[in-house]
Amino acid sequence: MTGTNDFTADQAAYDYIPAEEIANRINALQQRLVAEKLSAVLVTHNVSVLYWTGTMQTGYLFVPAAGEPTLYVRRSVERAKREASIRTVPLGSFSRFGQTLRQDYASIFESEGPPRVGADLDTLPASTYLKLASFVSEAYDGDKGGAALPDRGLSRLTDASPLLRRARMVKSAWEIERIERAAVALEESLAEALPELKEGVSELEWIARVEYGVRCRGHIGVMRLRGYNQEVPTGMVGSGTAAAEPTYFDGPAGGRGLGPSAPQSVSMKRFARNEPILLDLGCCIDGYVIDQTRTAVIGELSDELKEAYGAAEHIIREVEKLMVEGARCSDIYVASLKLAADRGLADHFMGFGADQVRFLGHGIGLEIDEWPVLANGFDMPLEPGMVLAVEPKFTFPGVGVVGIENSYVITAGGSPPRALTRTKEQLFVL
Amino acid sequence: MTGTNDFTADQAAYDYIPAEEIANRINALQQRLVAEKLSAVLVTHNVSVLYWTGTMQTGYLFVPAAGEPTLYVRRSVERAKREASIRTVPLGSFSRFGQTLRQDYASIFESEGPPRVGADLDTLPASTYLKLASFVSEAYDGDKGGAALPDRGLSRLTDASPLLRRARMVKSAWEIERIERAAVALEESLAEALPELKEGVSELEWIARVEYGVRCRGHIGVMRLRGYNQEVPTGMVGSGTAAAEPTYFDGPAGGRGLGPSAPQSVSMKRFARNEPILLDLGCCIDGYVIDQTRTAVIGELSDELKEAYGAAEHIIREVEKLMVEGARCSDIYVASLKLAADRGLADHFMGFGADQVRFLGHGIGLEIDEWPVLANGFDMPLEPGMVLAVEPKFTFPGVGVVGIENSYVITAGGSPPRALTRTKEQLFVL
Repeated sequence: MTGTNDFTADQAAYDYIPAEEIANRINALQQRLVAEKLSAVLVTHNVSVLYWTGTMQTGYLFVPAAGEPTLYVRRSVERAKREASIRTVPLGSFSRFGQTLRQDYASIFESEGPPRVGADLDTLPASTYLKLASFVSEAYDGDKGGAALPDRGLSRLTDASPLLRRARMVKSAWEIERIERAAVALEESLAEALPELKEGVSELEWIARVEYGVRCRGHIGVMRLRGYNQEVPTGMVGSGTAAAEPTYFDGPAGGRGLGPSAPQSVSMKRFARNEPILLDLGCCIDGYVIDQTRTAVIGELSDELKEAYGAAEHIIREVEKLMVEGARCSDIYVASLKLAADRGLADHFMGFGADQVRFLGHGIGLEIDEWPVLANGFDMPLEPGMVLAVEPKFTFPGVGVVGIENSYVITAGGSPPRALTRTKEQLFVL
Repeated sequence: MTGTNDFTADQAAYDYIPAEEIANRINALQQRLVAEKLSAVLVTHNVSVLYWTGTMQTGYLFVPAAGEPTLYVRRSVERAKREASIRTVPLGSFSRFGQTLRQDYASIFESEGPPRVGADLDTLPASTYLKLASFVSEAYDGDKGGAALPDRGLSRLTDASPLLRRARMVKSAWEIERIERAAVALEESLAEALPELKEGVSELEWIARVEYGVRCRGHIGVMRLRGYNQEVPTGMVGSGTAAAEPTYFDGPAGGRGLGPSAPQSVSMKRFARNEPILLDLGCCIDGYVIDQTRTAVIGELSDELKEAYGAAEHIIREVEKLMVEGARCSDIYVASLKLAADRGLADHFMGFGADQVRFLGHGIGLEIDEWPVLANGFDMPLEPGMVLAVEPKFTFPGVGVVGIENSYVITAGGSPPRALTRTKEQLFVL
């Protein structure tokens, strides 16, 4: 029942991921496995399992460099079989998973040299990793298992996180359409909520209004992040000094938050006149996120903040020219640092002082912190189909944050990127 | 600035965790370390870091079995120092973390035998675990580091997840007060939204209304789960057959969801007459969650479903009598299975067929899937201050789910547990 919908009328909105999408993704992944001389990859993270199978039911996806992949499902087998476009079987006894792999993939595990199997070690919890490494060892080394090896079998299951993250960077037309749906849902919800952004309303009350809007339009209720210990509700709305408070969140402006248990995003602070209000919002439709930021003010900003906002718009215009096929991500980041410095705003760019972040933009897709990142260390060239959120922002401690953020898809042949964000670009003066 | 509030008026709602709470928690943890002969524990997960320090900024918490713990902060040091009640220092160079630990905790790492250090391996990603194990080895074994050891240093950092989970089971009065605040916020929001639960309204639209209510009352926008690949927005609202669909979610009724990328909780299905509507809802205030379920119907349920709902109420009444100090969790689970079987409903209890879950209730607190669990394997006795959500439910494939869920705190001396859930117990006939 791959890719077809057997639901009744009221279930029509439950759209499966097309089988050809999954086939293309598996094919591209297998090419990467061959290129990096991996025998196979064991995918454990729910978002990646969804991407390469079409279902998010729990289990383990085994993709050999050549041949048919298998999804071993813990729960629910029934739903996984309905949704997945690849071979789907019950996981069975977890402690016998090594033997199952050896049976199903004899050409890999009965080969002469030890196979090189990778996994998503950037998300996989250590306790499960130790078990899986032992099973993969057992599949090759036989009944003695990984525990008998000097390194406990760790050499049998290596880190394939970078490979898996790179493999999801370029989005298909089907995926981009979904990101655009999220952009529309957010734009409509923001337009509904803006008239209620008034003096005396709290950041929390107002984001609740936006969240209601995106939820009614299909927002799935969570925004997925890959980073350990990172969370985001639907973005942040930060006004005045509350926006400028430093946070753990891996972004240029985290916001004060509601307390130590939610130390980022909105707070109970009420909007006041003549302070910058940062509207960094997102939502997730069909699994795909959008990310955008606008700056608003009730009344008027100071000249210093108006200039900084202008600098953010200037930087995003200049960066758009640089975001062409083949450009190196790190070069774009370095160029943005120079643009901020040219305006005398280096210390305020992307956070302040010790709490500055070292990037200008980040990939978006199924997760809000995808690759590539516009940062040092990311020397990969931009490719058509990559989708990035670019967010030049300036932080003034005790005063506030101004900035802008658009999401773009890279296009082919040296053309500028296409903006996916719908909301009008301006300083919203309310 | 431990435990005091230096914010201005509009920041008054940002309540710090009292220093004496943190001191009590650290003290209890150190007693467990001594009892289990661990030299120290390295805490990496944001929720646990919050619990034992008062801040959720990113970094690593090192708690020795005796002496002063230290929070090594990656970001933001400024905010962590403001919020934490324990010694808080910048992490500095991560690659030198082993040397930092050796300097700060010489009595542990310069001892004769290798120290036994634990960590939360149930959440810690494998790639970071491998680094931390290497650092801890380096702290003891010197410059050669963990990589030179036969097992790559893994024996130096063992799994302390069970210890850490057990240490958070018994809640203080301060914590229970916060869970009760969440219960009030949910009850008020549910009461506001119930009049809008009408034929033709979709599950999604209606939960959006509840979510708006809890958000305005301080819901932090996320519900935290510990389990890998588990997610929950604010619970699920499932009507008729949509509620009864099997899911990966580790609960008795996950719900259809919005698509493969959100295959649980609400769907686009519209409420119809004479079908059971399961309202399994929660929210998170000050970091603490509440979890409750009620069953509603527009019109009338069939006799079979009415009887099943009655059985759920009967089971929760009987289980309340069993939930006394000293009772074994697994015994209560086994008793509930018998109660369901006595009503001829064994096959429908806690899910259906292959997708039944093997528990009756679960701890709640900072996470929705805390310990203890009312399940086989949990032979620990109930202790005063433990908080559990108990959720007898019956699934009828193609028809729907009925049931009830209350959250309780265990009391002392053989008294029945105190219900924290506020919403009236009844089949809501609308």
